[in-house]
Amino acid sequence: MLPLLLAALAVAAAVAGASRTHPLDPLSAAELTVVRAAVLASPLVPARPLTFHYVGLDEPDKPDVLSYAYGGGASRPVLPRRAFVIARAGGESHELRVDVSNASAPSVLSHAVHRGAGFPTLTLEEQFAAVALPPKHPPFVESVRRRGVDMNDVLCAVFPVGWFGGEPPQARRRRVAKALCFVAGATANFYARPLEGVTLVVDLDRMAIVGYRDRVTYPVPKAEGTDYRAGKVGPPYTGPAPAAGVVVQPDGRGFHIDGHVVRWANWEFHVGFDMRAGTVISLASVHDADADAGGARRPVLYRGFVSEIFVPYMDPVEEWYYRTFLDAGEYGLGLWAFPLQPGGDCPANAAYLDGYYSGQDGNPVEGKNMICVFERYSGDVAWRHTEAGFPNQLITEVRPDVSLVVRMVVSAGNYDYILDWEFKTSGSIKLTVSLTGLLEVKGTAYTHADQVEQDGVDAHGTLVAENTIAVYHDHYITYHLDLDVDGTNNSFVKSTVTAVRDTGGETARRSYWTVRHEVAETEADGQVDLGAGGPPADLVFVNQGKKTRMGNEVGYRVVPGGATAASVLADDDFPQRRAAYCKMQVRVTPYNKSQKWASGLYADQSTGDDGLAAWSERNRAIRGEDIVLWYTVGLHHVPYQEDFPVMPTLSGGLELRPSNFFERNPLMRTNSKPARHDQPLVNCSCAGASS
Amino acid sequence: MLPLLLAALAVAAAVAGASRTHPLDPLSAAELTVVRAAVLASPLVPARPLTFHYVGLDEPDKPDVLSYAYGGGASRPVLPRRAFVIARAGGESHELRVDVSNASAPSVLSHAVHRGAGFPTLTLEEQFAAVALPPKHPPFVESVRRRGVDMNDVLCAVFPVGWFGGEPPQARRRRVAKALCFVAGATANFYARPLEGVTLVVDLDRMAIVGYRDRVTYPVPKAEGTDYRAGKVGPPYTGPAPAAGVVVQPDGRGFHIDGHVVRWANWEFHVGFDMRAGTVISLASVHDADADAGGARRPVLYRGFVSEIFVPYMDPVEEWYYRTFLDAGEYGLGLWAFPLQPGGDCPANAAYLDGYYSGQDGNPVEGKNMICVFERYSGDVAWRHTEAGFPNQLITEVRPDVSLVVRMVVSAGNYDYILDWEFKTSGSIKLTVSLTGLLEVKGTAYTHADQVEQDGVDAHGTLVAENTIAVYHDHYITYHLDLDVDGTNNSFVKSTVTAVRDTGGETARRSYWTVRHEVAETEADGQVDLGAGGPPADLVFVNQGKKTRMGNEVGYRVVPGGATAASVLADDDFPQRRAAYCKMQVRVTPYNKSQKWASGLYADQSTGDDGLAAWSERNRAIRGEDIVLWYTVGLHHVPYQEDFPVMPTLSGGLELRPSNFFERNPLMRTNSKPARHDQPLVNCSCAGASS
Repeated sequence: MLPLLLAALAVAAAVAGASRTHPLDPLSAAELTVVRAAVLASPLVPARPLTFHYVGLDEPDKPDVLSYAYGGGASRPVLPRRAFVIARAGGESHELRVDVSNASAPSVLSHAVHRGAGFPTLTLEEQFAAVALPPKHPPFVESVRRRGVDMNDVLCAVFPVGWFGGEPPQARRRRVAKALCFVAGATANFYARPLEGVTLVVDLDRMAIVGYRDRVTYPVPKAEGTDYRAGKVGPPYTGPAPAAGVVVQPDGRGFHIDGHVVRWANWEFHVGFDMRAGTVISLASVHDADADAGGARRPVLYRGFVSEIFVPYMDPVEEWYYRTFLDAGEYGLGLWAFPLQPGGDCPANAAYLDGYYSGQDGNPVEGKNMICVFERYSGDVAWRHTEAGFPNQLITEVRPDVSLVVRMVVSAGNYDYILDWEFKTSGSIKLTVSLTGLLEVKGTAYTHADQVEQDGVDAHGTLVAENTIAVYHDHYITYHLDLDVDGTNNSFVKSTVTAVRDTGGETARRSYWTVRHEVAETEADGQVDLGAGGPPADLVFVNQGKKTRMGNEVGYRVVPGGATAASVLADDDFPQRRAAYCKMQVRVTPYNKSQKWASGLYADQSTGDDGLAAWSERNRAIRGEDIVLWYTVGLHHVPYQEDFPVMPTLSGGLELRPSNFFERNPLMRTNSKPARHDQPLVNCSCAGASS
Repeated sequence: MLPLLLAALAVAAAVAGASRTHPLDPLSAAELTVVRAAVLASPLVPARPLTFHYVGLDEPDKPDVLSYAYGGGASRPVLPRRAFVIARAGGESHELRVDVSNASAPSVLSHAVHRGAGFPTLTLEEQFAAVALPPKHPPFVESVRRRGVDMNDVLCAVFPVGWFGGEPPQARRRRVAKALCFVAGATANFYARPLEGVTLVVDLDRMAIVGYRDRVTYPVPKAEGTDYRAGKVGPPYTGPAPAAGVVVQPDGRGFHIDGHVVRWANWEFHVGFDMRAGTVISLASVHDADADAGGARRPVLYRGFVSEIFVPYMDPVEEWYYRTFLDAGEYGLGLWAFPLQPGGDCPANAAYLDGYYSGQDGNPVEGKNMICVFERYSGDVAWRHTEAGFPNQLITEVRPDVSLVVRMVVSAGNYDYILDWEFKTSGSIKLTVSLTGLLEVKGTAYTHADQVEQDGVDAHGTLVAENTIAVYHDHYITYHLDLDVDGTNNSFVKSTVTAVRDTGGETARRSYWTVRHEVAETEADGQVDLGAGGPPADLVFVNQGKKTRMGNEVGYRVVPGGATAASVLADDDFPQRRAAYCKMQVRVTPYNKSQKWASGLYADQSTGDDGLAAWSERNRAIRGEDIVLWYTVGLHHVPYQEDFPVMPTLSGGLELRPSNFFERNPLMRTNSKPARHDQPLVNCSCAGASS
């Protein structure tokens, strides 16, 4: 006890000396240390061992945060620093709230034991421990030997089991996971060489193998052609490489990062980091130079983050039926974010932010270069016009577009998700998900597609290489977007494009369309299936209490990009029940601080009784309320040979676009013609490569 | 006659001395001169005046072009150089084919008089002549005076009348257009200040006003706040500008332009220019380093271009009902492309291509900087993977993405269309349309949206400023994409995501999806409504005669981006009949060299009896044929105040993505790690701005 207290006091001193913390800052290493000490010192959870599965900021209540952010004045309120912890001990999941405002005297504010279904995020440490078990398991040793594989080349990974009915949810199910094994050897791409047919079940609490099945034997796909490491993929090459190029900013960067607050052009926002959500964008506001607005900073997005990534596979066989990943809830997006590579993941002009998360033992772990921030010079145009209508002159006005990108990459096992938040001087925020990384593949005896056709079977995937089937699957990336358009109370309006047949006969025109505005009253009204074939609509978050000078309600609308798939699984199928929200790409709920996770607080082995779909069953009022937009980017992934051995990036997303938010195009007010505009930068060169 | 012959001989000498022409090169200035001389010298069209409305390359037959491009060998065939001309003379539209292979002896190969409906593209000269008429028309002078406007501030523009039934199509209708007038004065944005209620009808052949109506008077919107010229939009500004930035290529550009042939990385293609289509991409092929392919150059796209841009407005009133533009067929996309601004439209590392088109008198007109080509360093990732599965090492491989953009901007009156063809080393071609420029607005007495609501009327648009309604409208940008996937004969396959309910009971999983491949037999099968609510599908152009080593048919698929709207106009409404194709975003037809223009050869006052929808009524076979993809990017445009006075860029498009075209990810074979990859370029600076 004493060492812990001493450690805490030392940390307290460190914390007190640090610069002022923003109330939404992620928990620092020092604060995580204090949390750990407080939890371990608390008599409320005496059982040991105690493992930390989630430690995140329990942010202050929204009114207090808004007061801090927009209240103005010299004396900002000092808001508490609190952590929300999910720990496992004694076979139970414990929820604790810990106040670390005073580092030398932290206190556990609340404690509860989870009595419902599901388990918390798996820790990295227990996964590494679990995958060390199979090589010592005699039946597995035999399975490997029988397949002619060298055990030294074998690697395993942990796969959540999901939930498939059977026991009543509240029964204390074992916290088990499956372990699947692969062969590395000559390649780093072990996912391409599965030991198909072999499944181990590991009890994570007991850290023991409690189930084993070697159901069927298939050839292990060969290593040749599967590697992706530079130098491992030899010639021939496909021709000259593109020229080297780099973005040069002669006057330096245009953005400023103060702690976790980013200021750039007309935007200001806070960047946080959470072990489950990864990047968290908060308090995004845009400066409006328009006189009426008083040159004020106007709120747009209170808090935005990726809430869940659901990836169900489409093969009902024993080794695949349960692969229905919830990457945020089961694995943790922040936990599986790895250091970004300068010059690769982010261009040379990027700045980087580190992140801290809690290890299984509660000690802070530093994630370097978790998030990068950079100005993008894509060569695109912000706006332009050429006017040829004047008889004696051609008028041309062009403004090149510069945007600010905040990027994180999550490598959750085989897949890599590049998650971008892009801020534009037009007032838009573009959210882009780019998929890349490795496919999950199934071993098979087939070496040619003709054999599959001859057998008349459904391979449930594409034969991408000999003995290798890339199984069909979906990706659903669900964003939690608490838009606060010029204030917290908003409404969700569907501006529906409505065809009109009878034009009144004044002219020969027979039809046109007009707009019918439908304000969503309850959650059911706020659910939109973009592919349903109904009439098209602009989907707008409006502030019904604020209008422009012209009398239009200020708003931001959702402009879908590509990737608007919705799930086609049966409603009563178990993975669909656990992620029921993914049949509607757009959902709107009233703000509720505890309702963050689309898959529910306990995603591992969840049963669907918590989470976005379940909450919305209450059909709560969403008109003129503090409401939250949930947008799911969806993709039905039919794999192709080009996706193997590693997938070329495929992107989808959405744009949040101001819609009568500004009196007129805000770019007119952007001092967007840098002094050099008329004089393109020339004679640029680089002194040399860095050593 | 003699002067013409002498001129032709002089030109012939010039042409003979020039470097070898690619058979798909656009007609040069010299060739246009020869065409003109041949047409004017021909006894087949004696009437005068004779005006040239379209002069474009009549490209050689496809088999001959393919032989030239891929035939190999030292002796390439010399293919004829021919022009297709539509000229007006004697109140008729004349179609002529002119062979200019021998510049000193051109010959008119064919001549026909158009007997059907519709008229050719309007010339720039006749539009400028037409808009000079109103200020001399006494009723118009009175209308202007009555509105308190200074005639010196008045500008007019020509608007096609469309077709609204009445006369039988074959009757010789007058070639009329409407002229609408606006007030510039203190602003360059005259579109924002219409003289609403005033319509003139101009007979273009007689160049005389033949109709006039001043139906109703509304206030002219004020000039304040409408201008977009730098220096005209004063402070306050919205905060610091983004930092200046430029792409620097220390080793120079990575692409090479040889005449009109562009070579870059693994791509090679030909860039043409046409007065109706603008940019034409031809013979796009990709180098495949895979051994089996023999390191061959494999065809992807024979010919691609924007075939039509249809922009129907949604107000049935007298002054708006007919605004249903077909920008390519009525105006000409190449004709309304203006010089790109370096540093604005295209970044500093761009190269530019000029274009030539025929003026009304047949003389060549030079369009400088019509098209730019540049390598884009967006900061995006081509592919990546971080592997955390190995116990003792973290493996990270990242390849930054560099792509090649070919860009043209069409400023057809008020709107600006940025049209990009982006080539990626992954083998994809991304087509992007970016909308910007000025809205068409309607004068009104309303100064506040509450007034509109009180009156209970449908304003048919958004009140974006006092006295200014931005009318609802659609944009449909239709691409002609003659994909030749590894050869001319392809099939169109819909790989439909098909839900399966009964999983066989082997496990607890209740549903999944699989893929059902439907090969389109006839044109009806090849029509897809992306928003119909049917089952999702990958849409693939396959070569059923070519398979990968794994036995999958090689193909390219269509990945829709945002902007997938389809028309909701009534099928029997006149504008819908003229552009009937825009209810299906995807269409496939058999290749037919003369079937280029979705709106038909004669778009002005067309009746819909020619064009994409009409051809497809034949329901021709498209399985295992030389087929063409037609893809329409669609947007229902509900204007917002941010679109005024000029619209921030809004983008949509599609990606043509290799699908089992390659044995595996072609990026593995891309020598994409330039020597500096491990060593980010640093210490970059610019000597200074150019003077």
